[in-house]
Amino acid sequence: MAQDASFSLLTGDNIDAQRVKAGGIIFREGDKADQLYVIKSGQVRIQIGNRSVAELSANSIFGEMALIDNEPRSATAIAATDVELVAVSEKQFLFLVSQTPYFALKVMRTLAQRLRATNKTFG
Amino acid sequence: MAQDASFSLLTGDNIDAQRVKAGGIIFREGDKADQLYVIKSGQVRIQIGNRSVAELSANSIFGEMALIDNEPRSATAIAATDVELVAVSEKQFLFLVSQTPYFALKVMRTLAQRLRATNKTFG
Repeated sequence: MAQDASFSLLTGDNIDAQRVKAGGIIFREGDKADQLYVIKSGQVRIQIGNRSVAELSANSIFGEMALIDNEPRSATAIAATDVELVAVSEKQFLFLVSQTPYFALKVMRTLAQRLRATNKTFG
Repeated sequence: MAQDASFSLLTGDNIDAQRVKAGGIIFREGDKADQLYVIKSGQVRIQIGNRSVAELSANSIFGEMALIDNEPRSATAIAATDVELVAVSEKQFLFLVSQTPYFALKVMRTLAQRLRATNKTFG
């Protein structure tokens, strides 16, 4: 499963990464959205209101929900440490889904894991 | 969005549907899983423990999570009314994902909507 949930292919050395310092806000709940992010290094905390719902590390994606359903950001993403991120545009995302079924399955797996984790927390 | 979340293509007249009477258990939390379901008619209630987490109607899918992450059923599915269901095997599911990117996006949308709904309930 760890292997399956890895998006390391999207963070190769030849791909530009952006850096965010620890404590920096990557996006806020309610923001309009046009990209998702892959974590190249560091930790990202996902918060809804003041509640932390996930702590994500290298090769995880976040911000995919708003691209999938065209709704505003459902959560706030904060750099928990200094992080390097690779941004994936909506156009790139749709291309990846259409050309690489394995990518689509990995995105589904990510969503399913979060749904299970959320259900467990509140079950 | 309603259009996007519809899986009506999978429930055509020439596709065999199975019937479950109101109150019948379709699957139980913890069961091993090898198929997802599309609702052709009727209402299905999704429960975790005694908590109802969704009430789904025609052209919705359920049971997709266990196929995506190969874990046991995360919830119990009960026929809230008499229902007609079309079962989709894991093999058919993987075929649909690989051949029809739009299907993959619709499954992602379904998962994203459930995650948003769950987060709202507990937010």
